[in-house]
Amino acid sequence: MMKVYITRKVHFNSAHRIYNPNWTDEKNLEVFGGCSNPNWHGHNYLLEVTLCGIPNPETGYVYDLKKLKELIESLIISKVDHKNLNLEVDFMKGIIPTTENFAIQIWNQLQPHIQEAQLYSIKLYETERNFVEYKGEKL
Amino acid sequence: MMKVYITRKVHFNSAHRIYNPNWTDEKNLEVFGGCSNPNWHGHNYLLEVTLCGIPNPETGYVYDLKKLKELIESLIISKVDHKNLNLEVDFMKGIIPTTENFAIQIWNQLQPHIQEAQLYSIKLYETERNFVEYKGEKL
Amino acid sequence: MMKVYITRKVHFNSAHRIYNPNWTDEKNLEVFGGCSNPNWHGHNYLLEVTLCGIPNPETGYVYDLKKLKELIESLIISKVDHKNLNLEVDFMKGIIPTTENFAIQIWNQLQPHIQEAQLYSIKLYETERNFVEYKGEKL
Amino acid sequence: MMKVYITRKVHFNSAHRIYNPNWTDEKNLEVFGGCSNPNWHGHNYLLEVTLCGIPNPETGYVYDLKKLKELIESLIISKVDHKNLNLEVDFMKGIIPTTENFAIQIWNQLQPHIQEAQLYSIKLYETERNFVEYKGEKL
Amino acid sequence: MMKVYITRKVHFNSAHRIYNPNWTDEKNLEVFGGCSNPNWHGHNYLLEVTLCGIPNPETGYVYDLKKLKELIESLIISKVDHKNLNLEVDFMKGIIPTTENFAIQIWNQLQPHIQEAQLYSIKLYETERNFVEYKGEKL
Amino acid sequence: MMKVYITRKVHFNSAHRIYNPNWTDEKNLEVFGGCSNPNWHGHNYLLEVTLCGIPNPETGYVYDLKKLKELIESLIISKVDHKNLNLEVDFMKGIIPTTENFAIQIWNQLQPHIQEAQLYSIKLYETERNFVEYKGEKL
Repeated sequence: MMKVYITRKVHFNSAHRIYNPNWTDEKNLEVFGGCSNPNWHGHNYLLEVTLCGIPNPETGYVYDLKKLKELIESLIISKVDHKNLNLEVDFMKGIIPTTENFAIQIWNQLQPHIQEAQLYSIKLYETERNFVEYKGEKL
Repeated sequence: MMKVYITRKVHFNSAHRIYNPNWTDEKNLEVFGGCSNPNWHGHNYLLEVTLCGIPNPETGYVYDLKKLKELIESLIISKVDHKNLNLEVDFMKGIIPTTENFAIQIWNQLQPHIQEAQLYSIKLYETERNFVEYKGEKL
Repeated sequence: MMKVYITRKVHFNSAHRIYNPNWTDEKNLEVFGGCSNPNWHGHNYLLEVTLCGIPNPETGYVYDLKKLKELIESLIISKVDHKNLNLEVDFMKGIIPTTENFAIQIWNQLQPHIQEAQLYSIKLYETERNFVEYKGEKL
Repeated sequence: MMKVYITRKVHFNSAHRIYNPNWTDEKNLEVFGGCSNPNWHGHNYLLEVTLCGIPNPETGYVYDLKKLKELIESLIISKVDHKNLNLEVDFMKGIIPTTENFAIQIWNQLQPHIQEAQLYSIKLYETERNFVEYKGEKL
Repeated sequence: MMKVYITRKVHFNSAHRIYNPNWTDEKNLEVFGGCSNPNWHGHNYLLEVTLCGIPNPETGYVYDLKKLKELIESLIISKVDHKNLNLEVDFMKGIIPTTENFAIQIWNQLQPHIQEAQLYSIKLYETERNFVEYKGEKL
Repeated sequence: MMKVYITRKVHFNSAHRIYNPNWTDEKNLEVFGGCSNPNWHGHNYLLEVTLCGIPNPETGYVYDLKKLKELIESLIISKVDHKNLNLEVDFMKGIIPTTENFAIQIWNQLQPHIQEAQLYSIKLYETERNFVEYKGEKL
């Protein structure tokens, strides 16, 4: 039984600022620079969700990509697209919205809803040049 | 004397909302949808600046790209990167920050500073799938 | 009044073969090579639709991209995506489905439905390396 | 001795339909949607073949990429490019041509012919947004 | 009779330096910076050749892309790929190899060999962020 | 404590030739083909540096990307950009500059300077179609 990895890419646009509420504005500016601008900035995020599993012998699919697309749409996109990650996203409440933390929370949202196959990786591009990956690994 | 077009691409990240202050919030939402979210959203903008002219026989350059890069940096990037287009950008004051209007204002900022060659086009990608171009044409 | 060009990109997947029914199979093979394979082949087409016009002073839009997206969806995508261009697409009936002819027919489908702004260009990528553009020019 | 991974990307265009011959047309349509269109559709596939091994001290190469390119050309591209995956490809006979199954079969074709280095991964993009990876893992 | 533009993209890799032999090394360094390094540097060039014309009613082609590919291969690629633009390319002899001048010379090489259709544009990317276009326009 | 992978992409342009000084020119040509051209050729290299670690609870960062960017700039880019890899780069001295060997040396340069997080991978694209990855694995 062969193990195959399948990936679906989606896009969304959000506003955020990198900001630690336990720090002064000066310290935030010193550590985070323009990323902590109180008037916000934003990104076109590119999200890659990878599952792994055995292709079903009747369909040849590891997971129905239409179903995966709907899951990502309802659990993630509908909550973050054209939204402010600091103010409006329930699963980011109290969390500094770095790409690292955002990817971990996207994993935590999707993971309980993936049966039949296994969630393998969340890859999140903040810009064309910076991206993070989270595979559910804990130390 | 051959006419050649040269282009420099740059990236920046900004927050904005599409909002007509003469309208109610309801009308803004009806016309602009999620793009008018009062808590903002944002983009990784990709800007292409194209000049045209005759290559200088001594350098083979239409325009020194290092000089063009610095011009774009000082006149545009330093004012819009990690900023809020509605609140913080002097040359967007009072202007609805659609990609169309933003491209026109970028043209207006750069055009007076390009000598030796001619500004030919401002191409601005708001997302990978939507972009506008302004060539200084008036009707 | 400034003239601005706006573009929307969309994707679709179709099957086709390049085939002139007035020719023998041998002549089709000789002229079109593997592109005339009677068992078909296919592509991920990338379509760029460009309109031009004056940004509306109340919205800052040349044309509402949501509306343009719906127009492309109903007039083009719904008819060609996951379809056979030779057998199933009404507006390609009797036309050799080269990228050139396909772009012209997409123009002809969209053009009568674009009011307020002007259809400026249809750009159609058959592969990453080959594309055509049609601007409604006639000789 | 350092282990390095080297990858070669290639493109090809094929037609296919996702279809389980043990099912009725209705069930195929219900499960696979437009992907089971009896008149076919197609894709520009992007294939990434990754090998791993120790760089040869005399050449600095893990594997000669010219040789790898020829291997992929003769074993894969010549059989699938501008072909119908359901009807014309010997190594896909009797196999539902999902991206998952297709990647496994490409692995099976290449693997016996790679000596000196080790086949590590087959990554296959069906569209820009959907791709699979197979690393020869069995469960 | 509809006028259509068709484009073929190709890649090649070359070494060069930007250097005016009438100047001292100091002046070259001052004007061209690292681009004038006497030990050379190089690029993966991306070349887009665009022709325009009327699709032939018998083939639906403006120009056979196989034929265009061969023309670009024999007239350009075979002379510049894995070569030094300053030392080894006959049609660049005595010409400062800026992207501007290189594009003009590629036009001059191809133009006399394109019959049936018309050469419309040479677009040449030196890097992902810098490119030039030449359309045969003279002032 | 979640383990996250973060990546920064950078570009640079260099000249090189693939050449084994222990071999005759004929043997170099036979084995390496045009890649051994004595007059050099060059590439736009794309480098991806990936670190892994636990996001710092105070910043949400695995590693400050500004700091990583500066490290890559001072240790790699300043030494290889617009340079000749065979003649001018100290850390490539005596090493055949294949992409494999180049990636290993970039790892060796960066690895001692990454504290707080762990260097995980060096991915190096020589062209859009060929790339290598080194993860510090030894056999």
